[in-house]
Amino acid sequence: MLNQISILGPGLLGASIGMTVKKCKVAKAVKTWARRTETLSACQKMEWCDIVEANIEKSVIGSELVIICTPVNSIPEIIGKVSPFLEQESIVTDVGSTKTEICEKGTEKLKDSKGIFIGSHPMAGSEYSGMDYAKDDLLIGKSCIVTPLSGISQEYVEKVSNFWTSLHMIVHQYSPQEHDKAVAYYSHLPHLIASCLCNQLEKHPGNWKEISGNGFKDTTRIAVGDSAIWEPIFRMNKGNLIDAIEDLEKTMTQIKAFINKEDRNEIISFLKNGSEFRKRIKK
Amino acid sequence: MLNQISILGPGLLGASIGMTVKKCKVAKAVKTWARRTETLSACQKMEWCDIVEANIEKSVIGSELVIICTPVNSIPEIIGKVSPFLEQESIVTDVGSTKTEICEKGTEKLKDSKGIFIGSHPMAGSEYSGMDYAKDDLLIGKSCIVTPLSGISQEYVEKVSNFWTSLHMIVHQYSPQEHDKAVAYYSHLPHLIASCLCNQLEKHPGNWKEISGNGFKDTTRIAVGDSAIWEPIFRMNKGNLIDAIEDLEKTMTQIKAFINKEDRNEIISFLKNGSEFRKRIKK
Repeated sequence: MLNQISILGPGLLGASIGMTVKKCKVAKAVKTWARRTETLSACQKMEWCDIVEANIEKSVIGSELVIICTPVNSIPEIIGKVSPFLEQESIVTDVGSTKTEICEKGTEKLKDSKGIFIGSHPMAGSEYSGMDYAKDDLLIGKSCIVTPLSGISQEYVEKVSNFWTSLHMIVHQYSPQEHDKAVAYYSHLPHLIASCLCNQLEKHPGNWKEISGNGFKDTTRIAVGDSAIWEPIFRMNKGNLIDAIEDLEKTMTQIKAFINKEDRNEIISFLKNGSEFRKRIKK
Repeated sequence: MLNQISILGPGLLGASIGMTVKKCKVAKAVKTWARRTETLSACQKMEWCDIVEANIEKSVIGSELVIICTPVNSIPEIIGKVSPFLEQESIVTDVGSTKTEICEKGTEKLKDSKGIFIGSHPMAGSEYSGMDYAKDDLLIGKSCIVTPLSGISQEYVEKVSNFWTSLHMIVHQYSPQEHDKAVAYYSHLPHLIASCLCNQLEKHPGNWKEISGNGFKDTTRIAVGDSAIWEPIFRMNKGNLIDAIEDLEKTMTQIKAFINKEDRNEIISFLKNGSEFRKRIKK
């Protein structure tokens, strides 16, 4: 059991981590910092939260593990701010959906510090954001990608991995670069497309909404997501995301040609490939 | 209460309709016809099924309502086959996902018959097909679009609409042409894109599948759908579907440009539009 962890930015993920840490008895104390005073006040009423700290520098004192749960673009800056105040061999991680820039900058910011940075990406979001939607079972059974830079001691990597495992997450280890490529296809592109499907419907008759069935609802559910979270993700994973969009454009050109030619065999083969692939994704 | 209805093609939708008809006491007897002998045998064991008929011509005798639940491309041919055997003023409808061609051909095939054709599209599918997945609550609360050609007596339109309403569906009336445009955007394009997202991942490392989260799973769930059902839908709604694909290509070009330029305001505004639109879709 850890003595103390710090959660910086108790939104959907941060607060869910706090709740799960308490439920699974992973740390004796949870300290939290938030930018907004309303969030700090709300945290004071939360059972999972033992210490509320308005001062970001003090928020990491006494913690063996610091988890930064703010939007991706603010993570490097926060690492820089807490860097001089970290405990000896304390580990700083985050929950950001992009990893290359965060891991490089995070490591750079901690080079004269007592702490070590190792990126994480618990893949347990929802279309809703904010502490109000946090749940103590949000993380259970979901994947968490840990992305150590090469050269980091295996002991530290295990410490982070064990933390996520103790919250009942399934841990995978990727390089930050491979992580960013994989999530461009498995998370960022699906989000972008869900948003595109909704955006383009605005110019069509409003009453058409009444016929939206489960297929449409599922395909576009994630479009609800907070633009303040997703805009920096798109920017920070720009290169991979553009590659993924262009791949999809090519795939669309292909199926469009099959439909235009009414090529039954090619359409069936395309749909079958998609169906077989999807069936191989575990529930 | 109707005396008898016929369900031709008891797959996921056909069998679910049969179950709901019995549950809601909408008809005294349900007669069913299937192409395959195994399906006919299976139907004989089903509580919702009163009469199993291997002969398609006899399958409509004695029924006030005939519902054709086979893949879209086979519907006009089946209407032609049963046409001479329909009862006086019996209504023939279907559950096909495309309507223009089916309504035109259906009406043409019944012009010397005692029956009347009015198309329907109960939007209550699933990624799974076949009678094994049928449920007596699949239709409840879902939309059903009824697509009468102009000139059809309101009395008949009401008969079909009341049937779906009695199964607890929410009925909307569209022209076949408007239906086909709307479903191209709200059903066929989302299906196609889900399949594209899966197809293009085949060339990437297989282990990436392990990181697929809820976002990816929801966005691509419908890709599992049966290609034998979807291929003819794509062909029969070709024009509208191609328009929808090209609209999406334009929308993707737009957001790609914003990301390339790292235009924060435009990306946020795009994501917000998508989010606001999606929030207006009822659950």
